[in-house]
Amino acid sequence: MIPKSHPRAVSLYIREKLVGGFREGLVVEEGLLAHGRGEMFDYLLGEKTSKVSHEAIRAAAWEMVHAKYPVISVNGNFAALCPKEIVKLSEVTGAKIEVNLFYASEKRKKAIANELKRHGAKEILGVDSKFATRIPKLDSARRIVDKRGIFSADVVLVPLEDGDRTIALKKFGKNVITFDLNPMSRTAQTADITIVDNVIRGMPILIDVCRKISGKKISKKKFDNKKNLAKSIQTIKENLRRMSNA
Amino acid sequence: MIPKSHPRAVSLYIREKLVGGFREGLVVEEGLLAHGRGEMFDYLLGEKTSKVSHEAIRAAAWEMVHAKYPVISVNGNFAALCPKEIVKLSEVTGAKIEVNLFYASEKRKKAIANELKRHGAKEILGVDSKFATRIPKLDSARRIVDKRGIFSADVVLVPLEDGDRTIALKKFGKNVITFDLNPMSRTAQTADITIVDNVIRGMPILIDVCRKISGKKISKKKFDNKKNLAKSIQTIKENLRRMSNA
Repeated sequence: MIPKSHPRAVSLYIREKLVGGFREGLVVEEGLLAHGRGEMFDYLLGEKTSKVSHEAIRAAAWEMVHAKYPVISVNGNFAALCPKEIVKLSEVTGAKIEVNLFYASEKRKKAIANELKRHGAKEILGVDSKFATRIPKLDSARRIVDKRGIFSADVVLVPLEDGDRTIALKKFGKNVITFDLNPMSRTAQTADITIVDNVIRGMPILIDVCRKISGKKISKKKFDNKKNLAKSIQTIKENLRRMSNA
Repeated sequence: MIPKSHPRAVSLYIREKLVGGFREGLVVEEGLLAHGRGEMFDYLLGEKTSKVSHEAIRAAAWEMVHAKYPVISVNGNFAALCPKEIVKLSEVTGAKIEVNLFYASEKRKKAIANELKRHGAKEILGVDSKFATRIPKLDSARRIVDKRGIFSADVVLVPLEDGDRTIALKKFGKNVITFDLNPMSRTAQTADITIVDNVIRGMPILIDVCRKISGKKISKKKFDNKKNLAKSIQTIKENLRRMSNA
């Protein structure tokens, strides 16, 4: 048990979720390392959803609600951190859910699919090899996607994603939305919309905004991802300045 | 196998070492997360040993060579990343090696001790409960040290250490040297000398400097840890500026 008084209680609570996911076979070792990197960026960002991230979330919600065929790509960390929210977002936007792993294994895919089903998911793509196909410009193991999922999607939400894969999805013509706590990462810089926020905080907000705007006539607002990212980098710089003067 | 051409090859290679250590029972899940946080700082520091870190290494080498009773505190991550260098540093400086864990377990202590022995260590402290004693001002599980080791030391090298423990060691009158990639961490800010560098790069340099100065009459140079840390924070800020303009 983590004492609520601990200065890092929220961060430790999130970490526990991930370590739990690791023990249940959803998360791989590399996922724990990746989360550690994310934690540090979250710390540098002040561990809150900034105005800048809210802007990105609104842009992302518009795209997801107005997509013809939106798909949510789920990896081990994402499933361990917010399984309930993945299912809810899928319900609100009509997006398909596809399990898509960097370190693929049938066993892990099944564990993730089961976790999502336990939280109410009806259909999970990416687990039946009958529908497996490839996206070009990516090496063998990582290019597999589901014909009925990412392959056919116009808008793809790929949180916590590897840079190579994000670039390949862009080149394949997808409208890519991501969550990434590192605003300088290749994924963050390549995606069309990057939400620089912890999925734990950002996903409930994204669901909420999608719910509010769906069915309503709301015109698309201009969104400049590079400018948005630059503002997050600015936030980190300001926090560093504050921390180093403390 | 990691392709040498990968833009993150060195970082991935280090990560593999740590994941290997995890699979062999040296490293715990939390250690993988902690390494992820370190990786991110290393990335922000430009993944090289700065002039500033060289200064800290020289100051650390002087203290270790001139200590009456130096001790190297080893945890799972440190043992997984540079077992050979730990043994070499101990040989060059006459420092004792003590296994000292944040998440203690007899099994893990033994795995770490064996790994160090496999790399030539003759004596490993911290594994025989007969010699266990306590340092004050720290909660039960974490205050255990070896009578013949940290308890009796004048200079302690405690890389990748927890803030509470570093503070307790300082209060107990130890001259504390650490490696920490986060120049703002409590450990970094509390230690007498903080080497803001990856142990993979910094340890061979530390060994080298110790070897060069041992046996020679070299007077102690002034070293201001807070100023040194401020310079590393400055480096991060400059790199962030560069990255955000790229």
